[in-house]
Amino acid sequence: MTDKKITLTEKDIPTQWYNLQADLPQPLKPPLHPGTLQPISPDMLAPLFAMELIKQEVTQERWIDIPDPVREVYKLWRPTMLIRATRLERALDTPAEIWYKWEGVSPAGSHKPNSAVPQAYYNAQEGVKRLATETGAGQWGSSLAFACAQFGMACTIYMVRVSYNQKPYRGSMMRAWGAEVFSSPSDRTDSGRRILAADPETSGSLGIAISEAVEDAAMHEDTHYALGSVLNHVLLHQTVNGLEARKQFQMADRWPDVLVGCVGGGSNFAGFAFPFMPEKIRGEKKLRLVAVEPAACPSLTRGPLAYDFGDTAGLTPLLRMYTLGSRFVPPPFHAGGLRYHGMAPLVSAAVEQDLVEPIAVTQLETFQAGLLFAKSEGIMPAPEANHAIRGAIIEAERCKREGRKEIIAFNLCGHGHMDMSAYDAYLSGKLTDASYDEQALALSLAHLPKAN
Amino acid sequence: MTDKKITLTEKDIPTQWYNLQADLPQPLKPPLHPGTLQPISPDMLAPLFAMELIKQEVTQERWIDIPDPVREVYKLWRPTMLIRATRLERALDTPAEIWYKWEGVSPAGSHKPNSAVPQAYYNAQEGVKRLATETGAGQWGSSLAFACAQFGMACTIYMVRVSYNQKPYRGSMMRAWGAEVFSSPSDRTDSGRRILAADPETSGSLGIAISEAVEDAAMHEDTHYALGSVLNHVLLHQTVNGLEARKQFQMADRWPDVLVGCVGGGSNFAGFAFPFMPEKIRGEKKLRLVAVEPAACPSLTRGPLAYDFGDTAGLTPLLRMYTLGSRFVPPPFHAGGLRYHGMAPLVSAAVEQDLVEPIAVTQLETFQAGLLFAKSEGIMPAPEANHAIRGAIIEAERCKREGRKEIIAFNLCGHGHMDMSAYDAYLSGKLTDASYDEQALALSLAHLPKAN
Repeated sequence: MTDKKITLTEKDIPTQWYNLQADLPQPLKPPLHPGTLQPISPDMLAPLFAMELIKQEVTQERWIDIPDPVREVYKLWRPTMLIRATRLERALDTPAEIWYKWEGVSPAGSHKPNSAVPQAYYNAQEGVKRLATETGAGQWGSSLAFACAQFGMACTIYMVRVSYNQKPYRGSMMRAWGAEVFSSPSDRTDSGRRILAADPETSGSLGIAISEAVEDAAMHEDTHYALGSVLNHVLLHQTVNGLEARKQFQMADRWPDVLVGCVGGGSNFAGFAFPFMPEKIRGEKKLRLVAVEPAACPSLTRGPLAYDFGDTAGLTPLLRMYTLGSRFVPPPFHAGGLRYHGMAPLVSAAVEQDLVEPIAVTQLETFQAGLLFAKSEGIMPAPEANHAIRGAIIEAERCKREGRKEIIAFNLCGHGHMDMSAYDAYLSGKLTDASYDEQALALSLAHLPKAN
Repeated sequence: MTDKKITLTEKDIPTQWYNLQADLPQPLKPPLHPGTLQPISPDMLAPLFAMELIKQEVTQERWIDIPDPVREVYKLWRPTMLIRATRLERALDTPAEIWYKWEGVSPAGSHKPNSAVPQAYYNAQEGVKRLATETGAGQWGSSLAFACAQFGMACTIYMVRVSYNQKPYRGSMMRAWGAEVFSSPSDRTDSGRRILAADPETSGSLGIAISEAVEDAAMHEDTHYALGSVLNHVLLHQTVNGLEARKQFQMADRWPDVLVGCVGGGSNFAGFAFPFMPEKIRGEKKLRLVAVEPAACPSLTRGPLAYDFGDTAGLTPLLRMYTLGSRFVPPPFHAGGLRYHGMAPLVSAAVEQDLVEPIAVTQLETFQAGLLFAKSEGIMPAPEANHAIRGAIIEAERCKREGRKEIIAFNLCGHGHMDMSAYDAYLSGKLTDASYDEQALALSLAHLPKAN
């Protein structure tokens, strides 16, 4: 019998991130300039990103060193524990083992600081004074606010309106760390004002908030932009988590059969699962990777793989990804971090190349799964994380039907302390299975850029 | 250079709790029956408490075994880390070392489950079907809701009205774990109805909520009462934390010069500090213990040491403690867990016997301290924990003035994720130094029971 928790010490925090680009069977297609439709060059991104991050975006190197000052901040909460959900196993009466990596212990309460900290660090190193960003549920905004406080930078956050209203404490948290926070669309940017004029009642979207943050950064010399998911360098930083998990499974003398994560932009799933990929790609070990997305925003299971804008206003380069179209505004379900129209190019490529299996789940089944987890394992999970829990339960129930003693592991990417109103709604029977408008989706997809 | 975090593994979770009663130079005076003023016998407590807990309340044994099923639940989050606040040290420019024990990683977000779990366990063992309790800020209520879920029991919680309104997500959390929650005073009990009739606008108090929970338990055969602090058995359970901290300081090759904790009922402070007491009592090692209370509810620094009721309606036995009188209703400051009129008899005795130094701090200085901590160490602390942080900063500033390289350690008893409205109020300049009414205090003290 192993311990319930596999605990590492600080010396086990990885010293390098893992870059899947080095091992992907078919390489990524490059981002395109939205005007010329030609591949963009690194210097075209320089007004928005630190040069070191641009290099990480395109590098094919397998291992990238983690700077010491970043590891020092990681030590505030890393390494995180790998925990066996024995009580959940008993509740499900499954022969499978269920393990979860618990990323909610970071100051901001999720995996997001894994990338916020290096992004703030590299920008500070290059003399940038302020970072502008978007946030959905607020996990990323909190994380960047925290990270900027560590390196003495200012921070401006555009928070998707529906989450701004649903989760006011997230805004308070960002302000407590010294950031300024605005409901998006706001009247501070051209992009925001245009959207507000067209639809004053809009619930907002990550695509819109990204437009505002990019515009803010582009208009100010001392300001850069930071993105919380989707881009290669963000997924790279998140692998600190999966690399720890690999070591922990080694300590437990196990290799997982199935890895499960929720996907919005794709970074928490990628960070957890990608470090296990090399053996799978080389055919040395069996492993299934399951990406769980919300049925109300199903880029992987319903979207085409196409070049599309990362934002709604069309300010960003075109990325090749599974997408619902950059005009798609998902319904206001509670997993705000999963309300994004596209999917990280690296996750998209892994799905295209049959390395990752996507599934879509509905809101109600995720909250049911989250409450079962909270009652059995104690932790109150974020609505996003409930998608991963639901995915793990689906696998555990399959194992029960098939009588298999598989090892299932999922990334519990954050706590739900700021999301209790969603649980209230569920418990009082007011929550529904939010669904999107098929016509709006068709219209959004009809407007995919001409590059395709 | 030691690690920033001293990490234990599951085998380091203590197998016994430590009972200060075995080492206290002068023994505790017994609780008295409120009618006869004679010491109460254990069987008089039997309608409210499990027999095993009553035994723990009075035992003089130094070590009490922790049952295996309790240790199994502890493993959901224990052992917790001892962390060196290097970034706070730098922000304060102090020669002192500052360490904190981080208890906010429990499912409920504080130290409270350390006692909620054994209380639920012993009651479940003895066939009790439901526990009734009070809660201030909601940390204790959440913890008991979580603990009852682990042992299949029902749970009813009376939450002090001001906190019920200030911290709605705490109620949601309790409901998510399956408990029922009522704003106190409520119309469900005689005690509650009487208070409501006298003052419909009352902000409530822990004393009132205790009356309601005790009455609920006394009126129902299948129901027992659970208290989150004050009583000897609660402080006993909390020592699991200080025992871990002792081991961690040993691993770091250190012995603390000063231990700091906030005090409301006294259990988090006692649990952290008492296990370091034997060497101090025997004169083998130097050690200062500082108990930090809110200036707006200053039982240790303003109250007499006297026999008093634990609740407002006068339903409980009389306990000998520093008290502001059981009729005292503290102003509605945000550290709801510290809004209690009395102090644990064991902490009171330790103060009386010059083993513990009490200090009182104001609301604004605690939030200032909490924000400095959040910006430097990342974690967003509970308003209660901000009192401990303020106490540690006072010691660190003294060390700076005196040029001393002392080792200061405090108990960071909980996170502030449910308390962000308080930070909002502070950041927007709306928070004040809540203070109590001197006349009301005098009146309350004039009504101390005749036993004195």
